[in-house]
Amino acid sequence: MTRAELFSQIKQKSSFLCVGLDPDLDKIPAHLLAEADPIFSFCKEIIAETADFAVAYKPNIAFFEALGPRGWESLQKVLEIIPDDIFTIADAKRGDIGNTSKLYAKAFFETMNFDSITVAPYMGSDSVLPFLEFEDKWVILLALTSNMGSADFQLIPDASGKPLYQSVLVKSQEWGSPENLMYVVGATRGELIGEVRKIVPEHFFLVPGVGAQGGSLAEVAKYGMNSSCGLLVNSSRGIIYASNGNDFAQAARKEAQKLQEEMKGLLEIYI
Amino acid sequence: MTRAELFSQIKQKSSFLCVGLDPDLDKIPAHLLAEADPIFSFCKEIIAETADFAVAYKPNIAFFEALGPRGWESLQKVLEIIPDDIFTIADAKRGDIGNTSKLYAKAFFETMNFDSITVAPYMGSDSVLPFLEFEDKWVILLALTSNMGSADFQLIPDASGKPLYQSVLVKSQEWGSPENLMYVVGATRGELIGEVRKIVPEHFFLVPGVGAQGGSLAEVAKYGMNSSCGLLVNSSRGIIYASNGNDFAQAARKEAQKLQEEMKGLLEIYI
Repeated sequence: MTRAELFSQIKQKSSFLCVGLDPDLDKIPAHLLAEADPIFSFCKEIIAETADFAVAYKPNIAFFEALGPRGWESLQKVLEIIPDDIFTIADAKRGDIGNTSKLYAKAFFETMNFDSITVAPYMGSDSVLPFLEFEDKWVILLALTSNMGSADFQLIPDASGKPLYQSVLVKSQEWGSPENLMYVVGATRGELIGEVRKIVPEHFFLVPGVGAQGGSLAEVAKYGMNSSCGLLVNSSRGIIYASNGNDFAQAARKEAQKLQEEMKGLLEIYI
Repeated sequence: MTRAELFSQIKQKSSFLCVGLDPDLDKIPAHLLAEADPIFSFCKEIIAETADFAVAYKPNIAFFEALGPRGWESLQKVLEIIPDDIFTIADAKRGDIGNTSKLYAKAFFETMNFDSITVAPYMGSDSVLPFLEFEDKWVILLALTSNMGSADFQLIPDASGKPLYQSVLVKSQEWGSPENLMYVVGATRGELIGEVRKIVPEHFFLVPGVGAQGGSLAEVAKYGMNSSCGLLVNSSRGIIYASNGNDFAQAARKEAQKLQEEMKGLLEIYI
């Protein structure tokens, strides 16, 4: 999917919502456990009820991988039922030496047909570049994550005072463009999103940490939105586990709609 | 596996060789492609011929993942035929927020029964700690990798002049001990292995980059060995693709034996 197509969908739906698919056998409604593929059934109903409000889906690969080979089969089935015009993100946080990253890229972009994959920057250029060689596919590079431990290394200043996450932003400009490279920028650090935006004015950000992790949507939009929106804001648990009863998919729909309505208002303010 | 058990095996085999399993359908001998599970058949023969000389096997997860669900089935089968007394490493380079890392840990330590997994440090403490909660299981944390791009971020000095990889070494001392934490330290930077050894005198290093990537085994031992050996030196392509004919497993055996003999000499010098 191209950046223009993504922005077009954002305008059409008045939404920049990404729904995170973290299907956990311990958390999904009990009645689904009787199904042949409970994880798939869960995601299928969530997708059916939230597709009107979401411009992206982000399966968290760990939740599928934890189930072994059948988890991967569930993941492929989930990917197949996501409507073609919705952006798909493999939240896999891969990254390895060149020939290995190439295989990960092949796994997620060819064996499966994801539009994008999250990639960890620690190993540098040749661990990221293989993912950028696929047409209309995207790298979403970890820059400033939303978890507690992000402070351990991402905020370490270099000799000139520039924190590591800014070195990642600057260096990676040599590898990709706003047409094939996004960044993970956590919402729990509102003011820092503005710092990131100054360095990479055109790029899209995937913003986790709204909802369960405590970030504010209005603050993310204030500091992070650009003229092409430039934001995909993810909510996982707040939507998919809004209820664990028979009404889980309808409850998810309500939460997704609530976020979409807030996003509509923010898009009207800033774009 | 405990550290004492690993060292005991190293002494018994006079070897600190790790054989990297990177089974690539484009590189394995053509006659195996007719088998029901070519990847498994390839690894099975390699393991049978090299187990006398190897103290660890390191399946590179990307090579299995690239094949989709059947790749994961092959991986499980490979893991099952590795002799119990040989250390197993899931070269997966995972790392995510806490609840997600926990699932990755579950996937590799419980669904499969790996002894260890390689983990990327960028997301900090809560991305690594969940892997350290499993008894007799190991985290092998990326510190100084052997690829070209390692210089992009790992060598950035902080305000006090300390490069990022050293901050990773120092900080991670708070998370694990020499009994459950190892480090990836690339062999292409001989002198730097000595720097790492000064900071973490007791920990094991997983050293890639000997052979195809150009590192010298003697230099690695000189700078990196400690009184419990403290080294697992990996060779992948140099062993498993020593020949692509019908004699591939025997050729792999020869290469593994050659390395083991050199290792025996080095163990005699330094321990």
